[in-house]
Amino acid sequence: MTGGVAVVGAGLIGTSVGLALRQRGVTVHLSDRDRSAAACAAALGAGVDTAPGTPPELVVAAVPPDQVAQVVADSLQRWPLAVVTDVASVKMQPLRQLRARRIDLRRYVGSHPMAGSERSGAAAARAGLFADRPWAVTPHPYSTAAALAVVEHLVELCGAEAVRITPAEHDRAVAVVSHAPYLQAVLTAARLNRLPANEAALAGPALRDITRVAVSDPAMWAQILAANAEPVARVLADIWRDLDDLISSLAIEDAALRTTTLERLLAQGVAGTERIPPHRSG
Amino acid sequence: MTGGVAVVGAGLIGTSVGLALRQRGVTVHLSDRDRSAAACAAALGAGVDTAPGTPPELVVAAVPPDQVAQVVADSLQRWPLAVVTDVASVKMQPLRQLRARRIDLRRYVGSHPMAGSERSGAAAARAGLFADRPWAVTPHPYSTAAALAVVEHLVELCGAEAVRITPAEHDRAVAVVSHAPYLQAVLTAARLNRLPANEAALAGPALRDITRVAVSDPAMWAQILAANAEPVARVLADIWRDLDDLISSLAIEDAALRTTTLERLLAQGVAGTERIPPHRSG
Repeated sequence: MTGGVAVVGAGLIGTSVGLALRQRGVTVHLSDRDRSAAACAAALGAGVDTAPGTPPELVVAAVPPDQVAQVVADSLQRWPLAVVTDVASVKMQPLRQLRARRIDLRRYVGSHPMAGSERSGAAAARAGLFADRPWAVTPHPYSTAAALAVVEHLVELCGAEAVRITPAEHDRAVAVVSHAPYLQAVLTAARLNRLPANEAALAGPALRDITRVAVSDPAMWAQILAANAEPVARVLADIWRDLDDLISSLAIEDAALRTTTLERLLAQGVAGTERIPPHRSG
Repeated sequence: MTGGVAVVGAGLIGTSVGLALRQRGVTVHLSDRDRSAAACAAALGAGVDTAPGTPPELVVAAVPPDQVAQVVADSLQRWPLAVVTDVASVKMQPLRQLRARRIDLRRYVGSHPMAGSERSGAAAARAGLFADRPWAVTPHPYSTAAALAVVEHLVELCGAEAVRITPAEHDRAVAVVSHAPYLQAVLTAARLNRLPANEAALAGPALRDITRVAVSDPAMWAQILAANAEPVARVLADIWRDLDDLISSLAIEDAALRTTTLERLLAQGVAGTERIPPHRSG
């Protein structure tokens, strides 16, 4: 990445990208609508908060989903040779918005690092955030192989594992592995609001594990969910149907039939966990 | 506990109780319907697998929920001076079953350590399993203060934190903090079964945290859920209603209204997590 990288957006992900690239000796220019955020990220060592003097090789749009299309379009226009990627949690919506602008998208390839934190902002960033994590790279029919290679190089420099996948597959996948699980954590945690304190005292580490992600910023999540509404609603409808089955099973009077029915439903959970790829690092 | 403790049931919990008590120098006699399980627990250092020569001070029924009443009743009859407790995940069902037998329950006080493992059996046991964990102690209208004191002494010897609570409160609480969360993990994991492998590759640590408990034994859980069916069904009905709200919110066309509605639902999750007591140990 000898031409350097411009990171637009100095939040958790943008700053962590900057930190990871700086560790590999890559020149990083940071910018943010909020200048103090860019200054903070620069102070943490994620790059410099000045505009690039020469055209960057790659622009990383690390902004919330609903700003991605604008930042990508601006960057493609401003740097006519640079490859542009984004790191948003949804991939179809920005692509649709960019297509609607009827601009040349050959140098744009979306991506999405499967890493984050319950905390947000530059202060929560770290160079190792992406180490050994999957990082979706989502070429589309108009993107070039050269642009794809640059984005996959970024992934490699950040220590992550590139997973090449279409934007539609990506959105369906994250609805299942990320968005619906977050909502399940929220729904589980919400039940505690009406529990007396002496009863809440029985909560243990399993509940803490399950609800950890529910502390994340509702404003950020509302935007992600709205941007991936259809795939998420489809997963929630499946959960809703299973939940209905569970409630009915609990009401079965015949003890043997109830046990068989419950065990069959619960075994689907065991099978599901076996599909989760094992930890890549310790 | 100078009179010694008889542990009936050499599974994960029974063996861990034995190990914890042995560390404090308490005499422990282990038994199990499966003699090789008791022998295994004894070999691990959880006590001796012979019948007590002198009456024990306390009997711990560490058997599955549907065997608790039988083991408690037998123990009360066999040792006319011993206090008897159980460690099952539900407290109303065994108490109802014991009351139906019209026996003297003054020496019985139920309890439930809020600790466990996805693995089961003596081999997964450890002396520190209960360290700094809540351990519900559930006296009922017929139990004596002396029996309660003996059970609370057991909790203390195991290094846990006694939480005194009624059997009904206990069952309502575990439906919220344990049983429904387990089911949410199952429903979340079950969604992975129909996901292509390249999409499942995007799963990260948040999904792993949320679904960890879903690998637990369906047969054991079917029994726990059936024994606490009503409180669990009530919590699931609440989740079902919230899920319905979420699906409707995602379909709202007005972007600002959709965001406000989603954020309000998601904020309930943040508030819920604040009710979880902090870690007592590291």
